[in-house]
Order: sequence, then C-alpha cells, then structure tokens
Amino acid sequence: MDNLREAIGRFIAERDWDQFHSPKNLAMALSVEVAEIVEHFQWLTEEQSKDLPPEKLAEVREEIGDVMIYLTELADKLDIDLVEAAKAKMEINSKKYPADLVKGRASKYTDYGIRRKGDTIC
Amino acid sequence: MDNLREAIGRFIAERDWDQFHSPKNLAMALSVEVAEIVEHFQWLTEEQSKDLPPEKLAEVREEIGDVMIYLTELADKLDIDLVEAAKAKMEINSKKYPADLVKGRASKYTDYGIRRKGDTIC
Amino acid sequence: MDNLREAIGRFIAERDWDQFHSPKNLAMALSVEVAEIVEHFQWLTEEQSKDLPPEKLAEVREEIGDVMIYLTELADKLDIDLVEAAKAKMEINSKKYPADLVKGRASKYTDYGIRRKGDTIC
Amino acid sequence: MDNLREAIGRFIAERDWDQFHSPKNLAMALSVEVAEIVEHFQWLTEEQSKDLPPEKLAEVREEIGDVMIYLTELADKLDIDLVEAAKAKMEINSKKYPADLVKGRASKYTDYGIRRKGDTIC
Repeated sequence: MDNLREAIGRFIAERDWDQFHSPKNLAMALSVEVAEIVEHFQWLTEEQSKDLPPEKLAEVREEIGDVMIYLTELADKLDIDLVEAAKAKMEINSKKYPADLVKGRASKYTDYGIRRKGDTIC
Repeated sequence: MDNLREAIGRFIAERDWDQFHSPKNLAMALSVEVAEIVEHFQWLTEEQSKDLPPEKLAEVREEIGDVMIYLTELADKLDIDLVEAAKAKMEINSKKYPADLVKGRASKYTDYGIRRKGDTIC
Repeated sequence: MDNLREAIGRFIAERDWDQFHSPKNLAMALSVEVAEIVEHFQWLTEEQSKDLPPEKLAEVREEIGDVMIYLTELADKLDIDLVEAAKAKMEINSKKYPADLVKGRASKYTDYGIRRKGDTIC
Repeated sequence: MDNLREAIGRFIAERDWDQFHSPKNLAMALSVEVAEIVEHFQWLTEEQSKDLPPEKLAEVREEIGDVMIYLTELADKLDIDLVEAAKAKMEINSKKYPADLVKGRASKYTDYGIRRKGDTIC
C-alpha cells in the first residue's frame, strides 16, 4: 500500500496533474472507473459474473486497478488511511446489521427497524 | 489488507449474505457507495472539497470505508489481488500517458493520438 | 415521447434484446451511460462546463441521448410515465425544500431539520 | 415536457440555486440519483426486478422522477432538446448495431468487429 501510494504520487507529479485532482474531481473520476466495472457485468447473469472467461477477467482486473488507484489517491488527499477507514466502517456495519437479526436477508438496515440515537441516517 | 479481507469474509459468512454477493451485485453495490462519496462533493466548489469541515470529513471517511470494503470483496471473489492490480495498472497508465507528452494537460489518452497495436480501446 | 418509446421498443424487438433488458440490468446500463456524461466533465472547471466547445458538446449530446433512451425504456418496463413521475417528484421536492427556508443554500434536506411524519428517509 | 422544463426553472429560480447548478455539478447530481435507482435493484434477482411490490415500485418511481428532473435540467442548460437527442442517438445506435448481425447477442459493438471511418470510439 505504501509503495502504491508513492507510485501514484510520483505519477501525478511527473505529469503536473495535481492541479486537476481536487477531491471533487477525484470523486467523479472514481465513479467513472467504477462504471467501467459495471459495464462488464451489465448484461451477464449473476452466474456468468462468477465465471468470467480469462480475457474478460483480465479487463475487469484493469478496471479494478483503476478504481483502486483513484480511491487510494482520494483517501490520500483527504489524509484518510484507506485500510483503517474500511476496518472502522466494518465495526459500524457489524452493529448496524446484527448477525442474528439480518441472517439470510438483504435489506437496507432502516428496513429492520434498527435505529439508534446518534445514528447517521443514510 | 489480509486482516481486512478476513474480517469481511467473516462478516458475510455470519450473515449468510454470500448468496447475494455475486460479482454482478457487488459491482452495483460498489457504484452505489461511490455515489455516496460523490453526493458529499456535488455542490461544493473544488476549493471547498479540499478543505472539508471535520464532521463532513468524518462522513466521507465512512463512505470511503464502504467503497474499500466492497472493492476488497469484489476483488477477492474474482481472485484478484487488489494492490497488485493497481500496481499493474499504474505500469499501463505510465505508458498510455507519457509524462513528456501529457504534462499539465488532462485529456483522455485517445485525444493524444497515442494508440498502439493491441491497445484495448476504452 | 410516444414516438421515442415506440422506436426504442422496435429497436429492442428487432435485435431480440428483451431477454437482457430486465429492470435490474437497465438500471446498470443507465448508470454506465451517466458515467459517460460525467467523464466529459470530470477535469473541467465549473466555468468550462458551461461553455463547451462544439465537438465536445456534440459528444455530450450523444451521451445524454443514451441516458434518455435507457431511462425511457426502464420507466416503460415498470409501467411508469416518465414525465408524470418527474412532475410528481417536483411536487414532493417543493415541500421538502421550502423556498423561504433553503434560498441560496445547497444542503441535503435532512440538514435543514425538516422532517415530517411519513417521510421516506434517504 | 415543456411544462416540466418550466416547472424546474421556476423551482431553481425561487430557491436561488442556479449558482450551484453548473453542468459539471448537475452531471454529478444525476449520477447520484441514478445510484438511488440502482440501490433498489442491487440485491434483487433479475426476475424480482421485473415484479416489484407496490411500495418498492412507488419508491423507484420517485427516484426515476429525480433522474428525469436532473436530466431535463442538464439538457436545458446545454441547450439540448432531450427527446431530439434521444431520437438522434437511436439513429446512430441502429447503424452501430445492425439487427441481422447482433440479434440475440449482447456485446459491446466493438466486439462485433464493426468499426467505421469517423466512428467515435467509446
């Protein structure tokens, strides 16, 4: 992860692209790259999506790479540790969706009637 | 990263949610979470996006955490190493966008008249 | 609008694509097409986005066309009248964001302390 | 459509929101609203997405309304006629995807080996 962050920083600096990479713009670019993943899956069945042919998998791997690059850069710009942010959110999600309550059901947590004082809504 | 991947796996298993988490569905969920980042930035100027108030930054951190969680899970389901995929894509991007050619300009690489045999288009 | 809807129906039927066009898949395709609009704007300043050069405007027009096509088809599949749905939502938004309260401020309506019985949250 | 466009214009003017509604920002808002549609479908099977329960359908209708509102406003800001843009794009798509060639297959048109002089790539 440290190497990746540094490689991205060098890449941006060498191209003088920092002027374009505000968090606002990076959020847009991130959404565009994610759509390129979605595009690969849009007409596939769920089953097909689990068993991609090698060339297609290679393309998806590239798109996932791009998403990870922008996500790393965005987090870095905001002084957020990406892995720590994910772990912290896992803690929150574990409380939002208690295993015994939601087992085998996929609904938004507001549908479970679970809401607590101080909960961020949405 | 290994800890994160394991924590996600446990979280999903305890809730019996694997049945919903096909790559197709995870790609959708990933795009939804990215939109929650975008939502925080949509009415801000670029300058404002560089200097978020602490409460807003904390909310963005949570959304970034969610994106990282789904991205990690999607990569894992496809047997893709997330950090390696990003590094490999950095190599490709370095060739796509030679520093001397693109310095200070933000265009799609197809606009630079750079195209090589075997390039994936788009 | 009626002509457009019919033209889309014919296009899909002639290609035997209805089998792929479930509402789920159409929602994905819609998000991919919107990202192609976003891509045109991601590195532009807000000012630049108001004054696109003619070729770029022509490209954005094509992407907007694609978004409108998928949106029309999705609404049609769900038996929703697109224009009526937008008008009905305008009514809701007018109540959610009273002009005297929100004038000149761009925040999510939950930030205004406006919440009413029966409000869908999010 | 004319009524809708006028209603949106009035809504924005009364709230003095035009200052926030650059095409760049509207593209972001459009993508956020589309994600709210996607969110409704992300854990459903394709079959379930064709047969939504009435409350869920009512929510999707509201999200579709929001997408149509932002799309109408964005087109209007760029002096694009939304329905005409969709019809023009239908013409292009008909040529890109000849019925006899693509019947019953859902691939990106670049996969059909169809490329013509002057084609916009992507």
